[in-house]
Amino acid sequence: MSDSSNMMPHRTIIKGGTLVTAAHTFPGDLIIGEKIIAVGNDLAATPDMQVVDASGCMVLPGIIDAHTHIQLDTGLFQTPDDWQIGTTAAACGGVTTVIDFATQFPGQRLSEAIHARWQEAQPAVIDYALHCMVTDLPPGREDELDELIELGVPSIKLYTTYRPNYYADDATILRLLKAAGERNILTTVHCENDALVTAATQALIEAGETDLPNHGRARPALAEVEAVHRVLFLAQAADAPVYIVHCSVARSVQQVVEARARGQVAFAETCPQYLLLDASAYAGDQPHQYILQPPLRASENKEALWDWVKAGAVDVIATDSCDYTLDQKTACGELAESTCGELAESTCGELAESTCGELAESTHPDFTQTPGGLPGIETLLPLMVSYGVAPSRLSWPDLVRLLSTNPARIYGLYPIKGSLAPGADADVTIYDPRGSSTLTASTLHGIAGYTPYEGFPVQGHVKMTFSRGQTVYRGGEFRGRPGHGKFITGRPYRM
Amino acid sequence: MSDSSNMMPHRTIIKGGTLVTAAHTFPGDLIIGEKIIAVGNDLAATPDMQVVDASGCMVLPGIIDAHTHIQLDTGLFQTPDDWQIGTTAAACGGVTTVIDFATQFPGQRLSEAIHARWQEAQPAVIDYALHCMVTDLPPGREDELDELIELGVPSIKLYTTYRPNYYADDATILRLLKAAGERNILTTVHCENDALVTAATQALIEAGETDLPNHGRARPALAEVEAVHRVLFLAQAADAPVYIVHCSVARSVQQVVEARARGQVAFAETCPQYLLLDASAYAGDQPHQYILQPPLRASENKEALWDWVKAGAVDVIATDSCDYTLDQKTACGELAESTCGELAESTCGELAESTCGELAESTHPDFTQTPGGLPGIETLLPLMVSYGVAPSRLSWPDLVRLLSTNPARIYGLYPIKGSLAPGADADVTIYDPRGSSTLTASTLHGIAGYTPYEGFPVQGHVKMTFSRGQTVYRGGEFRGRPGHGKFITGRPYRM
Amino acid sequence: MSDSSNMMPHRTIIKGGTLVTAAHTFPGDLIIGEKIIAVGNDLAATPDMQVVDASGCMVLPGIIDAHTHIQLDTGLFQTPDDWQIGTTAAACGGVTTVIDFATQFPGQRLSEAIHARWQEAQPAVIDYALHCMVTDLPPGREDELDELIELGVPSIKLYTTYRPNYYADDATILRLLKAAGERNILTTVHCENDALVTAATQALIEAGETDLPNHGRARPALAEVEAVHRVLFLAQAADAPVYIVHCSVARSVQQVVEARARGQVAFAETCPQYLLLDASAYAGDQPHQYILQPPLRASENKEALWDWVKAGAVDVIATDSCDYTLDQKTACGELAESTCGELAESTCGELAESTCGELAESTHPDFTQTPGGLPGIETLLPLMVSYGVAPSRLSWPDLVRLLSTNPARIYGLYPIKGSLAPGADADVTIYDPRGSSTLTASTLHGIAGYTPYEGFPVQGHVKMTFSRGQTVYRGGEFRGRPGHGKFITGRPYRM
Amino acid sequence: MSDSSNMMPHRTIIKGGTLVTAAHTFPGDLIIGEKIIAVGNDLAATPDMQVVDASGCMVLPGIIDAHTHIQLDTGLFQTPDDWQIGTTAAACGGVTTVIDFATQFPGQRLSEAIHARWQEAQPAVIDYALHCMVTDLPPGREDELDELIELGVPSIKLYTTYRPNYYADDATILRLLKAAGERNILTTVHCENDALVTAATQALIEAGETDLPNHGRARPALAEVEAVHRVLFLAQAADAPVYIVHCSVARSVQQVVEARARGQVAFAETCPQYLLLDASAYAGDQPHQYILQPPLRASENKEALWDWVKAGAVDVIATDSCDYTLDQKTACGELAESTCGELAESTCGELAESTCGELAESTHPDFTQTPGGLPGIETLLPLMVSYGVAPSRLSWPDLVRLLSTNPARIYGLYPIKGSLAPGADADVTIYDPRGSSTLTASTLHGIAGYTPYEGFPVQGHVKMTFSRGQTVYRGGEFRGRPGHGKFITGRPYRM
Repeated sequence: MSDSSNMMPHRTIIKGGTLVTAAHTFPGDLIIGEKIIAVGNDLAATPDMQVVDASGCMVLPGIIDAHTHIQLDTGLFQTPDDWQIGTTAAACGGVTTVIDFATQFPGQRLSEAIHARWQEAQPAVIDYALHCMVTDLPPGREDELDELIELGVPSIKLYTTYRPNYYADDATILRLLKAAGERNILTTVHCENDALVTAATQALIEAGETDLPNHGRARPALAEVEAVHRVLFLAQAADAPVYIVHCSVARSVQQVVEARARGQVAFAETCPQYLLLDASAYAGDQPHQYILQPPLRASENKEALWDWVKAGAVDVIATDSCDYTLDQKTACGELAESTCGELAESTCGELAESTCGELAESTHPDFTQTPGGLPGIETLLPLMVSYGVAPSRLSWPDLVRLLSTNPARIYGLYPIKGSLAPGADADVTIYDPRGSSTLTASTLHGIAGYTPYEGFPVQGHVKMTFSRGQTVYRGGEFRGRPGHGKFITGRPYRM
Repeated sequence: MSDSSNMMPHRTIIKGGTLVTAAHTFPGDLIIGEKIIAVGNDLAATPDMQVVDASGCMVLPGIIDAHTHIQLDTGLFQTPDDWQIGTTAAACGGVTTVIDFATQFPGQRLSEAIHARWQEAQPAVIDYALHCMVTDLPPGREDELDELIELGVPSIKLYTTYRPNYYADDATILRLLKAAGERNILTTVHCENDALVTAATQALIEAGETDLPNHGRARPALAEVEAVHRVLFLAQAADAPVYIVHCSVARSVQQVVEARARGQVAFAETCPQYLLLDASAYAGDQPHQYILQPPLRASENKEALWDWVKAGAVDVIATDSCDYTLDQKTACGELAESTCGELAESTCGELAESTCGELAESTHPDFTQTPGGLPGIETLLPLMVSYGVAPSRLSWPDLVRLLSTNPARIYGLYPIKGSLAPGADADVTIYDPRGSSTLTASTLHGIAGYTPYEGFPVQGHVKMTFSRGQTVYRGGEFRGRPGHGKFITGRPYRM
Repeated sequence: MSDSSNMMPHRTIIKGGTLVTAAHTFPGDLIIGEKIIAVGNDLAATPDMQVVDASGCMVLPGIIDAHTHIQLDTGLFQTPDDWQIGTTAAACGGVTTVIDFATQFPGQRLSEAIHARWQEAQPAVIDYALHCMVTDLPPGREDELDELIELGVPSIKLYTTYRPNYYADDATILRLLKAAGERNILTTVHCENDALVTAATQALIEAGETDLPNHGRARPALAEVEAVHRVLFLAQAADAPVYIVHCSVARSVQQVVEARARGQVAFAETCPQYLLLDASAYAGDQPHQYILQPPLRASENKEALWDWVKAGAVDVIATDSCDYTLDQKTACGELAESTCGELAESTCGELAESTCGELAESTHPDFTQTPGGLPGIETLLPLMVSYGVAPSRLSWPDLVRLLSTNPARIYGLYPIKGSLAPGADADVTIYDPRGSSTLTASTLHGIAGYTPYEGFPVQGHVKMTFSRGQTVYRGGEFRGRPGHGKFITGRPYRM
Repeated sequence: MSDSSNMMPHRTIIKGGTLVTAAHTFPGDLIIGEKIIAVGNDLAATPDMQVVDASGCMVLPGIIDAHTHIQLDTGLFQTPDDWQIGTTAAACGGVTTVIDFATQFPGQRLSEAIHARWQEAQPAVIDYALHCMVTDLPPGREDELDELIELGVPSIKLYTTYRPNYYADDATILRLLKAAGERNILTTVHCENDALVTAATQALIEAGETDLPNHGRARPALAEVEAVHRVLFLAQAADAPVYIVHCSVARSVQQVVEARARGQVAFAETCPQYLLLDASAYAGDQPHQYILQPPLRASENKEALWDWVKAGAVDVIATDSCDYTLDQKTACGELAESTCGELAESTCGELAESTCGELAESTHPDFTQTPGGLPGIETLLPLMVSYGVAPSRLSWPDLVRLLSTNPARIYGLYPIKGSLAPGADADVTIYDPRGSSTLTASTLHGIAGYTPYEGFPVQGHVKMTFSRGQTVYRGGEFRGRPGHGKFITGRPYRM
């Protein structure tokens, strides 16, 4: 009996808060079980209900981080955050769904990649969905995309860079855009011109200028601008929707707007790091913390990017989170040395392979040997409240739109996710906007051991997180359990 | 007893429909009194409730037409639709709120203009809000704008054209943008370069080419593009939000997007006529039906405008409705003749005054003597469903955003209007998307006696309209009563 | 006899130099009388010829400064450089033609303005042409433009600012663009939005922030950008050519390029001060030296403007020279006070009139009371050689195109001026590019007593200047004579 | 004696014409030997001179066609115009220099390619210069570019399309742009996105829609726009000048302008066919005549392209002439069949190879099997006079700039070519602008047997052509001799 009551989701009434949807902010109560049951004013609590007092708080549909890299294995490096750790940090940050990646390794069927990733994700404490990173789908195998639809993975990811493992040339991108579009699969693309990045990197290597502060010079803004332009034109030719991940340059977003004005269906994503950090970080004393692709940009770009966010031109803010530890960020050279044989699948410095012989002589940190990526899932919501809503760059509905409803809608999770409407999954985040504190790695739950936002003041805090009606975070402590998280089927995108 | 029951709002449960908000579409039930009471699944009807079966139907927050000209008196002409007639047509079209204009006549205080318009609007059958058309507020009288805030009118309207009565020069526009912005009042502007329009019109008069098909030549697209650019820069200099009414040219919207990318708060409105009709109408046999300002544009502009709508760059679709009758549209010359003495307040052909002596010789329809404006409130929703949602240019939430939530939010009516959230006014429109029919003036309720969309096929129909819980339209018949409509206080806009 | 020999132009052979035209740079000799007689290799000197050794030097068609304000009388101020002094400085700088302005004072016929200016220009030592500054040409008087053609003045100047004397509203600009265009007269326009400038200035006055460093804030870049956009659209509507004077903002030139891409005939002029100086000058200790309209702009604008010059988008570089003395630049307040009664014709601070009562209290320099304008004719060529040609932003033919051939062609002086072709007037400037020196006011010949380029290093120097075959500058000394200069008839512009 | 006088160039005096340079138009006489000797007024003829009466005529520097494909051997096809025939047609059209291509075949050193082409060009009747088509220069061999400089070939040509023989990927283009730029070699690029063209072509093949009218669908405008954008960004990254050949889309030129505004050195070339013909030709009864790459574009593009020409944004108009015969244009299928073994070097339909097995079944003309290219050298000047100068889109100096001086300057032939200045080669074209006629293939001198401009009215005609002082065309007849033409050394480009 007690067992069964444990199995049954408790019903909870969240009273007195301000409910936020992508459209509305209104005072109201919420009754939830595993699903949202009712939204209303002065709803009555019954004895079986847990009562949560949300007065003074914002009650949001659970945050969806549409771009994460949990437990990323690139061959050379593996982020040490398994799915339990990674999703625990998410839950503590008010995130109730992550959309991560299933990487197709060479030779795999796409469905194998999905199944393999499902295995890894078993310990997840919150729900997740997947994009499929397509790396090896030659002509004739496009029908495998049908399996993605059947498996509930309606989006693929392509790269214009990272030879040889991830790189897709124009013909491949065009072919897959078209094949995906015909199946209502959304193609997402990492846009940096490979030739420009490779040549700039090679020039720095030849000049012996690979110390960390030069990271940004290896990946100039124009490499991104060029690739975004090209991918948008390929999508236009393919008559297919396209989603540009992690736009780091304001002009990338502008080009997405221009594509829409030509009648295209095109989405723009940006990340907190491009809105809040800039290239001056490379001149600081912790440059390794900021090695990522694309790199941080010139300072004036930040506000220009915010202007596009404010203009409604950005569809999604997601993290591109990647929890390398400080040890990994600083000790890459040694690791590389010891694993030179395994470099084939490396993305940690696409040039690692060719310089393997020289690694022994490496005497100081080198951006080509430093794994790229920043942790960020847990800080996503507090940062966007503090630097988006608090200074009135965003309204609360804007925030919910960018961090929950749009990702859900674009990736076919909606209205199960991204919504407070009756019938939706009871993924709910309660944010208390009162008070302020300072971000510091020691209070975060990820494994990276640092945060690029160390010392950033934030407004308010996550008070509670519900995942399908279960309390997974409360009172500053994680309350969930491994394995609670389920894979969520995405439905095919329709233009 | 029966009286009191009449006075008390019935409670109604709307069951089995698909509820639509600006963010969501979900199956659900709605319990309403004068306010929205509850939103949920499988809500129980109690005996006191009217039960409405909405299965198969879309349940929308009541439509808000943010730009109407009911009972417009320009001195020379008066549209014969008093507020009862005008709002009856609105209710029959699923519109539950109109935002109309209080015109400040020369010498009036702004508050007088509001009070006078309140008098006229007494017979309204649905709720309404007001913009204040500011025509005479010289330096030193800006404080009168404070009265607007007190009266619940948080938006003003300015014109860059229509000398001498409405025209505001750059200095006036800049001054009022600034004065309004400081008070969180939103400035809306009709943008056509006056010199360009006047000169083009004068040239046509001199060439004897004022027959109706030449109407568009008198108001070239570049006159709008220029004025939109200028007004956006004036707003930038004033650091004030601005709202461009009836963008008829795709490039106007583009310029609004560019302004947002510079960090401005700028809104773009367009109208069904610019999305669905084009200048070829002037070559048809009913050109008088299509005389309006700005005029219909080249055919290729329509799809370009839709592209901007689809891109999310347009904030509001409203009608600019103006119910001149066919008699007025065709007999303007004679009317003008008989009222030459009163021309000072005329907007029907800003040149009427100067050509008054020649009117007697007018032997055929002349666009300078034809009152400009099209009827459209009642057809707004069916057209946008049929040509927006049906062909997938818009989703249902897009439609609600453009036709209800955005107008409510921008003009400070939200969340009382524009929302299905508990606590909002129970303005609800039930649209049955099944079946199709053909628009024809004979089934419409306005006074114009024609519709510019005669013969347009439409998908579905308005099934019921509720205004604050009262059924005002059902079963193809108007069920409301004069005087039910109330003025709704708009709260000041905050950037 | 000696008299007649004085009257006869000597023939001169200029040997061994590098001849430069807008198309070519080639070694060659030049034989000149009053006209260019021959261009060739190894031409033989005859005994009657003066022989000039130009080896190592560049032989240019005489420089034409297309935008000067010699002996400018604005009612409040008069620049103290009469035509003799002004054109002497020009000749010493290698300038052989100035295109100055004949201002139409209120009530004058245009032809009266021309005749009056001819009187003043009698002492000119080099040739000159005129633009007509049209300030009072109401509808019905457009035919006076025909007189301009007859008089050889094929260009007019309009202002979008400087109320009440110079300001032309949109209707006037449109009307005059059209009237001028129909007569092949080129309309030149000073573009700054009057409302924006007036309001910004007024706000600074009210804030008590009229000290000189605030000058730029009174005339923001967006005021220029807006006005250029508007004027280009008015010209498009008028189907008339247009010439934008002193583009100070890179985006102004961009808009001219966009207009050309729409099929318009549009010209862009910029000035050395916008290419070489920037707003940081206002923070220096001589801000009065840099008060001009439009003001100096942000530093990054300079290189952007150069990029447009290098791209071939700028047609003319001219000076807008205006020789107020340092006394006038610093003592404006006192002058203003004493002449309050005459302010109607003032352009020195268009707000002077309204603040006249407060002048007595003025205790420090005030930009609203400081006459705007910089000296520059004499330094035009050395600066453009040194900062254009020397650092390879311009080729020598580019320089000739921008400083001589284009002005000649655009203003109908070509091929009499702006050319080294046989038959052209023998206006020749020999520039020795060897050596370097530092610009300093003490060696200049103007009356201003200062140069805004004090201390600028320059490459080479003007070696000789010929005006219609007469040596007017040689060996560092002026050799011409008052009255030598003639008015040059401009032929009407053809599109 | 008579022999020696034959060997000695006669001196010629061209009297009474209007001389045209890129800067000037002026009446004058010209004395020429092998070089231009003198330019002047009323020059005296001496007894040894041939006297040419040019009264009423325009005397131009000889026309330079900067983009020709004489005797083009693509492996599959060879244009049957050997250098004698090809340059004879040129001379008859007033062209005195062609800049053709030396193709590097796989395995060749660049210098071998140049030497081989010199051999072929021996019979040329006018002078020529060369671009080097670099097809196989892997990393490490960049130093071969130094040989180009030594040999007088300061420009290379790359293709973004035509796999496998000509195609260069981004990395190659970037590397060669950089290597070329460092040596002051100008990189010219054919810009069409290979993936887009290949996929569109393949789709048409699969759909069985390869009949000639579909040619344009295989190479959409967006493929060019994308590639131009990309190449400009690669050039920006390489800090190298770049020249975009045969811009067929107005937006391509716009992008070149935008690149210049970013500070780049970028050139735009267009061709008569894109200014005068459009895609409607494919619907006519001679579609094979118009198969070329890039294809003819939509009609409205023509005027937009002219607008950019008029705006000064286009640097060069050249022909991309390629003299396939009508037999070759129509009989490609059969030829292809018989030569299937040799397809490796084919550019006639880059897909020819893959469809070789199916050729036998080909029953009608197929654009994939039709060699691309139009004849045009001989008609270049008459067309540009008739459709550029006559309708005032161009002035005579504009024409000389675009067709002679700019090509000479850009490709380092200046001032030996492209100039009427003393010392320049006496390449002179006399054009008589009087009278009109109709273009027809039967009066042309090329081998193609047709002209795409059949029936086009033209204004005036070429009266005489001089090549280094020798009359090569006069009185409607060719007067030159094989072998007169020499290779002209181009000097390295300097930015």
